[in-house]
Amino acid sequence: MLRVTFLGTSAAQPTASRGLSATAVRHAGELLLFDCGEGTQRQMIRYATGFDVAAIFFTHFHADHYLGAIGFLRTLSMLGRTAPLHLYGPRPAERLLQVMLFTGTDVLAFPIEIHEIAAGAVVRRPGAEIHAFATQHRTPSLGYALREDARPGRFHPDRALALGVPPGPLFGRLQRGEAVAAGGRTVRPEEVLDAPRRGRALVITGDTRPAAATAEAARGADLLVHDATFGDEEQGRAEETWHSTAREAARVARDARAGRLVLTHLSTRYDQDPSPLVRQAREEWPAVDVAHDGLVLELPLPD
Amino acid sequence: MLRVTFLGTSAAQPTASRGLSATAVRHAGELLLFDCGEGTQRQMIRYATGFDVAAIFFTHFHADHYLGAIGFLRTLSMLGRTAPLHLYGPRPAERLLQVMLFTGTDVLAFPIEIHEIAAGAVVRRPGAEIHAFATQHRTPSLGYALREDARPGRFHPDRALALGVPPGPLFGRLQRGEAVAAGGRTVRPEEVLDAPRRGRALVITGDTRPAAATAEAARGADLLVHDATFGDEEQGRAEETWHSTAREAARVARDARAGRLVLTHLSTRYDQDPSPLVRQAREEWPAVDVAHDGLVLELPLPD
Repeated sequence: MLRVTFLGTSAAQPTASRGLSATAVRHAGELLLFDCGEGTQRQMIRYATGFDVAAIFFTHFHADHYLGAIGFLRTLSMLGRTAPLHLYGPRPAERLLQVMLFTGTDVLAFPIEIHEIAAGAVVRRPGAEIHAFATQHRTPSLGYALREDARPGRFHPDRALALGVPPGPLFGRLQRGEAVAAGGRTVRPEEVLDAPRRGRALVITGDTRPAAATAEAARGADLLVHDATFGDEEQGRAEETWHSTAREAARVARDARAGRLVLTHLSTRYDQDPSPLVRQAREEWPAVDVAHDGLVLELPLPD
Repeated sequence: MLRVTFLGTSAAQPTASRGLSATAVRHAGELLLFDCGEGTQRQMIRYATGFDVAAIFFTHFHADHYLGAIGFLRTLSMLGRTAPLHLYGPRPAERLLQVMLFTGTDVLAFPIEIHEIAAGAVVRRPGAEIHAFATQHRTPSLGYALREDARPGRFHPDRALALGVPPGPLFGRLQRGEAVAAGGRTVRPEEVLDAPRRGRALVITGDTRPAAATAEAARGADLLVHDATFGDEEQGRAEETWHSTAREAARVARDARAGRLVLTHLSTRYDQDPSPLVRQAREEWPAVDVAHDGLVLELPLPD
């Protein structure tokens, strides 16, 4: 499973219908959060993501992207969590999170591991790696690419049978990439499997100007979630505030040949009607949708 | 107008239907907040309180009562606020708010005045005083009594006419408590007005065990908003955690002869069905209701 739940899709300020930035990703049985704006814990309840979060990846440390972690960690502690929680983010993760998470409060019931990382960092998680890449905002910022491990290629039972492998457990071992003894010889998995299939890839930018590094990180990704705070008519503001227009986000998706682009972090102006953003973006790249709080996307396995 | 809007009525953790502690009070044209848990700014939008807050009164500094102030102040700053905002609360207001409000963030566009206060403090606001009183929680804590100024007594136009005062502007001046010259003499307001009428009183506790000081502060109050985290069956937990049961809150209301009691800060156990709390409380004092997010109470002027 690779499931993305949009928990907060508003820029800077919440609205009645959109919360502050947070995206939940369920992969290989694990829950990861990307940003954790104020109110995220309540959105997680509302949209039933579960609370068993293994790690939080912060794109940057503007208030609307991280304040929710303070209360969420208190709640996890009250609920008796004991498993460590890993927090990843760019400068000043270490200094800021130490202050904001641990000031004026009881000791948490579980350990926190703060990892201050930079572009190029790779975080190993079960079944996937998370690659941090540079984005362009007015504070140190990172985007994250979740790259699933490759899966074994398609299995050809007819070839296995022809090589003398009986149907049953040996089939399973071959499918998992193990060599087996059959018909008086060793049958190697590559004799009965196609080439390994690529894993899925999901890229989340946080707040950023359109950037070549994002297109690079999102090359062929199944899903690119990109800042689209503004429409064409606020191009100047997008530049001043180091955000992207929907059109710019779509150009990044086009450059990356991303399978799908989801626009998020919308200015309150587009809160009720984001259709202009979609329209503008689709002029650049066809596979565009716009996020709303509670949107759930399941990324299918590629063939 | 004295209007109370309940913005967050859940204890410790939010639920899908209840946010963390915050109550908005609109009085004499002014907006006051009592506590400001995570998500309060969004609740203010949802329940249309306005954002023109003059002061925030914190009952204590547990995370579920104050974290929302951090993001709310960022939002006010982005919206261009320039008016000072006053923050009141018990120890460690000064030290904690300095750290939590000003770490890792741009300078706010408006001045913040932090007032660390103790029981007995009186804050003058237009048309009312806010009296801080001691509550009993496991951290320094205060309750607040908003006591409206007395209003002039009922005006008797027949008496004014008999004393030679012509109808018109002089009537208004007498009603406002000014002496006027009429019929060749000075007419004093007490000749044409009944005794001054008491103002309204609203008391909000924050988290607390039932306390004589609360009953004292709420003597004859129009509305007492009281911690009612638990029901009878969790009396022990109420004591351990320094909260009140609904029944205990009702006994405080009874001792105070409060006009109305509203139960709030509900354990998640009562999130969907708080009726047991109301039933238990009404065995002690009849005028009991239970808060829900978005509940608006307008307190009528007493005769």
